[in-house]
Amino acid sequence: MEKPLVGVVMGSDSDFPVMRECIEVLRDFNVGFEVSVISAHRTPEEALEYAKTAEERGIKVLIAGAGKAAHLPGVMAAMTVLPVIGVPIKSSTMDGLDSLLSIVQMPGGIPVATVAINGAKNAGLLAVQILSVTEAKLKEKLKQYRIKMKQEVRNKDKKIKKEVGLE
Amino acid sequence: MEKPLVGVVMGSDSDFPVMRECIEVLRDFNVGFEVSVISAHRTPEEALEYAKTAEERGIKVLIAGAGKAAHLPGVMAAMTVLPVIGVPIKSSTMDGLDSLLSIVQMPGGIPVATVAINGAKNAGLLAVQILSVTEAKLKEKLKQYRIKMKQEVRNKDKKIKKEVGLE
Amino acid sequence: MEKPLVGVVMGSDSDFPVMRECIEVLRDFNVGFEVSVISAHRTPEEALEYAKTAEERGIKVLIAGAGKAAHLPGVMAAMTVLPVIGVPIKSSTMDGLDSLLSIVQMPGGIPVATVAINGAKNAGLLAVQILSVTEAKLKEKLKQYRIKMKQEVRNKDKKIKKEVGLE
Amino acid sequence: MEKPLVGVVMGSDSDFPVMRECIEVLRDFNVGFEVSVISAHRTPEEALEYAKTAEERGIKVLIAGAGKAAHLPGVMAAMTVLPVIGVPIKSSTMDGLDSLLSIVQMPGGIPVATVAINGAKNAGLLAVQILSVTEAKLKEKLKQYRIKMKQEVRNKDKKIKKEVGLE
Amino acid sequence: MEKPLVGVVMGSDSDFPVMRECIEVLRDFNVGFEVSVISAHRTPEEALEYAKTAEERGIKVLIAGAGKAAHLPGVMAAMTVLPVIGVPIKSSTMDGLDSLLSIVQMPGGIPVATVAINGAKNAGLLAVQILSVTEAKLKEKLKQYRIKMKQEVRNKDKKIKKEVGLE
Amino acid sequence: MEKPLVGVVMGSDSDFPVMRECIEVLRDFNVGFEVSVISAHRTPEEALEYAKTAEERGIKVLIAGAGKAAHLPGVMAAMTVLPVIGVPIKSSTMDGLDSLLSIVQMPGGIPVATVAINGAKNAGLLAVQILSVTEAKLKEKLKQYRIKMKQEVRNKDKKIKKEVGLE
Amino acid sequence: MEKPLVGVVMGSDSDFPVMRECIEVLRDFNVGFEVSVISAHRTPEEALEYAKTAEERGIKVLIAGAGKAAHLPGVMAAMTVLPVIGVPIKSSTMDGLDSLLSIVQMPGGIPVATVAINGAKNAGLLAVQILSVTEAKLKEKLKQYRIKMKQEVRNKDKKIKKEVGLE
Amino acid sequence: MEKPLVGVVMGSDSDFPVMRECIEVLRDFNVGFEVSVISAHRTPEEALEYAKTAEERGIKVLIAGAGKAAHLPGVMAAMTVLPVIGVPIKSSTMDGLDSLLSIVQMPGGIPVATVAINGAKNAGLLAVQILSVTEAKLKEKLKQYRIKMKQEVRNKDKKIKKEVGLE
Repeated sequence: MEKPLVGVVMGSDSDFPVMRECIEVLRDFNVGFEVSVISAHRTPEEALEYAKTAEERGIKVLIAGAGKAAHLPGVMAAMTVLPVIGVPIKSSTMDGLDSLLSIVQMPGGIPVATVAINGAKNAGLLAVQILSVTEAKLKEKLKQYRIKMKQEVRNKDKKIKKEVGLE
Repeated sequence: MEKPLVGVVMGSDSDFPVMRECIEVLRDFNVGFEVSVISAHRTPEEALEYAKTAEERGIKVLIAGAGKAAHLPGVMAAMTVLPVIGVPIKSSTMDGLDSLLSIVQMPGGIPVATVAINGAKNAGLLAVQILSVTEAKLKEKLKQYRIKMKQEVRNKDKKIKKEVGLE
Repeated sequence: MEKPLVGVVMGSDSDFPVMRECIEVLRDFNVGFEVSVISAHRTPEEALEYAKTAEERGIKVLIAGAGKAAHLPGVMAAMTVLPVIGVPIKSSTMDGLDSLLSIVQMPGGIPVATVAINGAKNAGLLAVQILSVTEAKLKEKLKQYRIKMKQEVRNKDKKIKKEVGLE
Repeated sequence: MEKPLVGVVMGSDSDFPVMRECIEVLRDFNVGFEVSVISAHRTPEEALEYAKTAEERGIKVLIAGAGKAAHLPGVMAAMTVLPVIGVPIKSSTMDGLDSLLSIVQMPGGIPVATVAINGAKNAGLLAVQILSVTEAKLKEKLKQYRIKMKQEVRNKDKKIKKEVGLE
Repeated sequence: MEKPLVGVVMGSDSDFPVMRECIEVLRDFNVGFEVSVISAHRTPEEALEYAKTAEERGIKVLIAGAGKAAHLPGVMAAMTVLPVIGVPIKSSTMDGLDSLLSIVQMPGGIPVATVAINGAKNAGLLAVQILSVTEAKLKEKLKQYRIKMKQEVRNKDKKIKKEVGLE
Repeated sequence: MEKPLVGVVMGSDSDFPVMRECIEVLRDFNVGFEVSVISAHRTPEEALEYAKTAEERGIKVLIAGAGKAAHLPGVMAAMTVLPVIGVPIKSSTMDGLDSLLSIVQMPGGIPVATVAINGAKNAGLLAVQILSVTEAKLKEKLKQYRIKMKQEVRNKDKKIKKEVGLE
Repeated sequence: MEKPLVGVVMGSDSDFPVMRECIEVLRDFNVGFEVSVISAHRTPEEALEYAKTAEERGIKVLIAGAGKAAHLPGVMAAMTVLPVIGVPIKSSTMDGLDSLLSIVQMPGGIPVATVAINGAKNAGLLAVQILSVTEAKLKEKLKQYRIKMKQEVRNKDKKIKKEVGLE
Repeated sequence: MEKPLVGVVMGSDSDFPVMRECIEVLRDFNVGFEVSVISAHRTPEEALEYAKTAEERGIKVLIAGAGKAAHLPGVMAAMTVLPVIGVPIKSSTMDGLDSLLSIVQMPGGIPVATVAINGAKNAGLLAVQILSVTEAKLKEKLKQYRIKMKQEVRNKDKKIKKEVGLE
């Protein structure tokens, strides 16, 4: 397996059904990654240690998913200058708005690159895009991925036209 | 001055106009306190160190005020078993809702006792109430404080009745 | 059984599935408690009587859970100087936002220590933390509880690493 | 002056600039009223006493205005079967949404007739409408009031038409 | 059957499962009523005609339930000086917030007495309270109803105490 | 089949269960239409090309449905002076509020005629109303449609009256 | 002056500072219009009469602006099959969300073409776009207008580049 | 000046007071940039052209700021595989929530790295962090920047301690 370049962290194993989508993207792009369950609140020292040592372990980008008062991405971002991508996870109340605001509204100085509520897939793609800045091969794959997406939309277009009886 | 029993922490000096109200309450009740500007994101290690050592410094209750993606109270709460009171501070956007949700929606295991947006005065009173659980003198003072409040309401009642011309 | 130190109150028996979590915490910590269904609106006099006499009954902390226009915690807080913890309960509309704002936005003078929507477990823990301020044994138990939580996160970490095929 | 039929209550004298509008309406309709500053949280016993004795004092309708975690109307409604009209008052945060939800989302059994945020004028009119149910003279005045309003709209219509240069 | 004193109107038959609760209350109190499906938008002339003629038909109070852009209560209120009670009905999106704001935020001059989202039961009770202003018998029944509610809370209190094993 | 006058576009085939309602309306009114799946983000060039060429293909009105950060209607509107109707589609989080605001809050210069969340039926009717401005036959059909709607409300009125036992 | 094709209606003269922007657009495009202050709630019969007779007066499109519980556009739409454009006007509370939801969330059958909060300028443009469907000259003017807008953006681009010192 | 690596784009010159903060950061870090005013809606073709050619012009990261229905970042992201950072800009209504949701809630496949409302400073820092992934010198500067921030917090800490009279 590839050397881990992306560190994927989630606050609880209950976040895994959402976060697995970013892991699938990283696999598709053949980008090495590591996965951890670390809680900003229950294992705060490990959260800091993890972020602090990420750079020296060779990690280039962090992805952190969390719900409710979702501090994990911000806490990670405070401990490293690596780009940190935050995935707000919808929990049982407030429809994800709490997670979104807790992650995106970071104060000046410590950014978190936030994606949509439950947008783990896009977190994976954003990590690949960041890595591709100086990695021509990844950029090429991203372009292929976009072409495939276009094709899928065109297929759906045909399917719906047929369903409506227009084709 | 009294030995500090309450640790008041705020994320930035811009939070001081709000947080000063809790300091005034603590002074009124003659409860010793310490005040610090510590940022969960800009000085994360100091935030953890502060919370971790609070108990051994003799602190009994922490009050943390923060705005936007307000992680400070939660980060403190993760590092100590002392009660942590969180004050959501209204910033320039979102009318304080971001601060409120970031503080109150803590995951199971690590509570933060949250007060109203900009409710620093009540944070001070809540700290006193917590200390009064085993401190008869404080409880007495709290009751006096309530009586004074009642009297103020009655005075306002007279003032308004006069203004309306009913008395 | 232990002498009741915590008074747990809920507005309706329909709140019990949520509020039972705080009862379980109190049992785990071997803290005596009493449980009551009292409605701020349907049995207002009993609500006041309950809060007013709580201190003399030996209660040290109150926990009140309520939904919708959730006045119970505030009404209790108005009648006692004991710390009152409020649990906003999600009802069938508004996703708990109504309960949260009705509880947390208390006016200056009468604080309610508010936890997350449906956060009864944390209400129980907060009560224990408040009691532990002068109770070394409880503080010790809280630290053990935190260690157990850390271990659970580490177990989940292993589980997810295995599921992803990284370990 | 007329015998008081409407009890106007507000949580603080800071609510008076809003609540005065309902007093003006009551004066316009020559409906007797009494005005009080009573706080559900700072003077809870007076709040209950006030509501409980309203009926025997000859009061027919209560109007209660309050902001933030606005419990006053609900607390009043719990103590009397007189109709209680609630006026949510916009405070410095949350744009009045907290007051509105705290007042309108009453549980089954104890209604509060809620008007718009800062809608004290309509609270006064609603009180008059309730009294007019069996008071033909008031009904007549209400109809005159509506005719006057219509005329005002027509005057505004002319003014704007002139301003636009269409008349 | 009793002569109709309350006019219950709803925008669609899909509102009936909610609105039936107010009909049950009116039946319990033996208050005569009429029920109609009238849409402010699909049958606007009938809506106006209905409200305009309500008074002469002997109706004393109107209750109007509607969802989404819920104009029915306001449209009714514009055509009569009878008190109009509005019931915001939760539809498939926006969790009832759209209905609530469309009903409660009436402009100065034309009040709608708004109850909670889906709060049809309280609409019925509020109608009874309004009628009871000059109807001693209804007032007595309302007091009995409150006593019954209190008893129900006490029964729930016993049930929960037993369930927890405290009694 | 009729020559297409309305272009119906949706961002994904998952929007079809909602968007089909506008297609049914267009069929009912015998207005020719075309249907396409085009994504503002996955097939941006096709989105622009589609809107740009709509006028020369004889299209008179565009209807675009999209969810989440719903850019499709705005992107279309930017490329054509034909009226563009936007349908905010409720997705799995945020209850449709994100879609609504992304569509309706267009900056000055480029309007999108926005209908309710999931309001595809009304989008179809609005398109017909726009076409009817200079098409007397469509206007006549719209009036018949309204009469039919009125009749349906009257039938529901009878049904509910019967259910309640009033008729 | 041109024969009125667009009927501009607002609920109060206080809406005029916003609504004047749509009048300016109509003037720019040399489209005849009429302007009225009509209130859905204070002058309901005139509101209905106005909408009902609009078609026979030669009006092709209606624009209605209103705030708070903004029923005017929906009430108009219920009385005519002409396209009705709704402008939600921000009032002193709720930041325009109440107006937006009251206007856009129309039930199936009666659409209102809603523009942004305070988006009167776009309401004017949308009216022109609707009229241009069969009016080649207006379509041409709209295209010129777009070109002018493009030029303005380019001028702003130059201005900012200069300000930053990049040109 | 340095060769542009970051493309800063804003929808209007009115966004400049916010966006200038990201330009200052880029200057501080001596990272070359270009600045443009391009509107997704008023100059859509230029928006696409700009994004499409960014990569071949040597741009590595895009920053796009926009308000209301803020489509610019998403439209850019759809046309390039470069990382796109979105800055939601608070406009005159909705307190920035509309801008935030329009930017962050991107559908799967096309991510936008979203920062806080008006968080242009963090957008600049995030761009630097992304560039630093393979640029050791920038990483070093970022670490220096963090140290400076820490020092500023410590200075504020001293200032507040002095103000409170604790030092």
